[in-house]
Amino acid sequence: MKMKYNKNFDNLVDNYLFSTIRAKKRAYEEAHPKTKIVNLGVGDVVGGLSQTVVEAMQKAVGDYLSPATFKGYPPEQGYEFLRESIARYYSRLGVNLSTSEIYISDGAKSDIGNVLDLFEKTTSLIPNPVYPAYVDTNLIRGNKIKFMEGRKENNFLPLPDFSDKNSYLIYLCSPNNPTGAVYDKKQLSLWVDYANQNHSIIIFDSAYESFIRGDYPRSIFEIEGSRTCAIEISSFSKRAGFTGLRLGFSIIPNELEVQKKKIGKLWLRRQSTRFNGVSFVIQKGGEASLSEKGSRECTRQVDYYLENAKILKDLFTNLGYDVVGGVNAPYLWIDCKKDSWEFFDYLLEKHQIVGTAGAGFGSLGKNFFRLSAFALREDVEIAKERLTKGGI
Amino acid sequence: MKMKYNKNFDNLVDNYLFSTIRAKKRAYEEAHPKTKIVNLGVGDVVGGLSQTVVEAMQKAVGDYLSPATFKGYPPEQGYEFLRESIARYYSRLGVNLSTSEIYISDGAKSDIGNVLDLFEKTTSLIPNPVYPAYVDTNLIRGNKIKFMEGRKENNFLPLPDFSDKNSYLIYLCSPNNPTGAVYDKKQLSLWVDYANQNHSIIIFDSAYESFIRGDYPRSIFEIEGSRTCAIEISSFSKRAGFTGLRLGFSIIPNELEVQKKKIGKLWLRRQSTRFNGVSFVIQKGGEASLSEKGSRECTRQVDYYLENAKILKDLFTNLGYDVVGGVNAPYLWIDCKKDSWEFFDYLLEKHQIVGTAGAGFGSLGKNFFRLSAFALREDVEIAKERLTKGGI
Repeated sequence: MKMKYNKNFDNLVDNYLFSTIRAKKRAYEEAHPKTKIVNLGVGDVVGGLSQTVVEAMQKAVGDYLSPATFKGYPPEQGYEFLRESIARYYSRLGVNLSTSEIYISDGAKSDIGNVLDLFEKTTSLIPNPVYPAYVDTNLIRGNKIKFMEGRKENNFLPLPDFSDKNSYLIYLCSPNNPTGAVYDKKQLSLWVDYANQNHSIIIFDSAYESFIRGDYPRSIFEIEGSRTCAIEISSFSKRAGFTGLRLGFSIIPNELEVQKKKIGKLWLRRQSTRFNGVSFVIQKGGEASLSEKGSRECTRQVDYYLENAKILKDLFTNLGYDVVGGVNAPYLWIDCKKDSWEFFDYLLEKHQIVGTAGAGFGSLGKNFFRLSAFALREDVEIAKERLTKGGI
Repeated sequence: MKMKYNKNFDNLVDNYLFSTIRAKKRAYEEAHPKTKIVNLGVGDVVGGLSQTVVEAMQKAVGDYLSPATFKGYPPEQGYEFLRESIARYYSRLGVNLSTSEIYISDGAKSDIGNVLDLFEKTTSLIPNPVYPAYVDTNLIRGNKIKFMEGRKENNFLPLPDFSDKNSYLIYLCSPNNPTGAVYDKKQLSLWVDYANQNHSIIIFDSAYESFIRGDYPRSIFEIEGSRTCAIEISSFSKRAGFTGLRLGFSIIPNELEVQKKKIGKLWLRRQSTRFNGVSFVIQKGGEASLSEKGSRECTRQVDYYLENAKILKDLFTNLGYDVVGGVNAPYLWIDCKKDSWEFFDYLLEKHQIVGTAGAGFGSLGKNFFRLSAFALREDVEIAKERLTKGGI
């Protein structure tokens, strides 16, 4: 028998979204070297980090100098001090977690793919439009995908079809990337009911929960019944500006079982076998970001992005566009009334503003445009001035 | 269809090796609270870290304070500065690597499991005794395992059986964990020839390469023909004391193909989809460990462990035991002439010394005992004194 490569990789569509954007931006810059381009295309935070976090990491790095304070292999599930801080963070929502249900990782993206190792091949229910990693990780695993449509008519918040009695891995991301739409409690309750009825599992991506200021659930575990049907995957990336530090976590309730097998136990076994934990330095930073002072500093940073989002939302609304998101979320999803790549070129050439063509997030994004509030205020103000003066 | 958990997890044997050791150690400590136990059972470094590394990380953490020097998402393949440092490190061996062939990760253990995502289910050729992660990751993937025997007769260095024309994933670890045995150039050449003839792929684990002081290959890429049949997985854990920081890398030559598919391209796609890179802070530490000053400090640390190993090897040899390893390697593999758990209990009770029962590394380890040189010198000296005085 000859060695074979994993044929599932052939099913991946090369998603040139961000490389195409980079190439177009670079080409424009080379042709117009003196023009400042405003980049509202990326979902990456801008600095700086909370002072409290930086100080905690400085101290942790210093601990490595002496044998007495040196730290070797971290516990695969994460240090207890960080899991306790996360449990406390959730308790503000009335969600009670045991630290045994919290699993630290190097980021939500890793967990989103790795969780598929726990299940036999299955069918996944994935929104369209969507963050591309959900689709690609399922294709690599050899899973089937059933898309659920996010349209203006349902505010880009697909709801369960109770006539479908199959069991699925159900991907929900709220606040959503790319649309910025946020599920309310009643809607999430429908999903939890559906999942429990059909032996389905919800993979709840709460990476953007810290942007919620209104009365919306920040965690799937605020919903009754969720402990028997949901895994929550979350991150320090956006709440605390950790994209470049790599820290996330998953919550798997002790009740969650498939065929009477505890999913949390499987996950710990998976992580102990294929992963070796997260650096003490980074976990100390995470803990500091959840301290009273750290939380205040992190919230200030999120508020800053929310203010960016408000400026952009008002701007595009005043220009006559329908805009979803931009409240309780860092992303704006703009009905650009034309092909999203045409709109991309238009904004770049006329106003030197870079956004993200919705087509990159799935077929239903093709006439939409994503703007990101992860930017410096001065850049948002420049974009505003150009668009207000120059029209669109 | 109902959700099913991954049945391959049922094939994992619960390996209680290290938890059993911890429990036995704890029980003894509780019964004898005043006795100092010398722990030579773990493969984890003791500090402190190189001053140069700590300073580089302190600086990198400081960079996060200001928007001007803040770092967001790291490149999935790793920063170019670190890949260049690694390429330079390999050039000392006469191994020329393009930085495009080097893929940074959060540790060798992650890569060892993740690399299996690239191939269809297959059969893996794995030594016995062996580092348990090779076996467990293959079982989770649903692969078959063919064990190759490491015995005194072959110096615990299995060689290829050229009459077997099947194609395999072949796991080689040199210097070896747990035996400390090291392949020479001629032996590795046999493996490379075999792999090329049979369309097999060698997964070469070089995590302990920095312990080699004699004339042995430190990299599989020192062997002619290896660029068409080998992946090397390596780590900063033991060379630079990074077990608690999490930094490793894999090398996949651009020539490596399976069914005309570039394995390096598949790996990058896998990593970009299921992984989000390693913290800038940690990569800066890795770079510093490869600088002239950092290298000198790291080598001093490895020399210290090698001196521990020599003390332990002389000791057990003088006590009349056959000892493999302990030269060019941090591990000693002792023929304990009885059941390894009996020997474990004996050493703990008579001399308050903890080692690792060889049975935990596979059936052929059942009458062997692993000692680790990753310890403070004072502890090694205490062990020596107890054994010399008390006999065995």
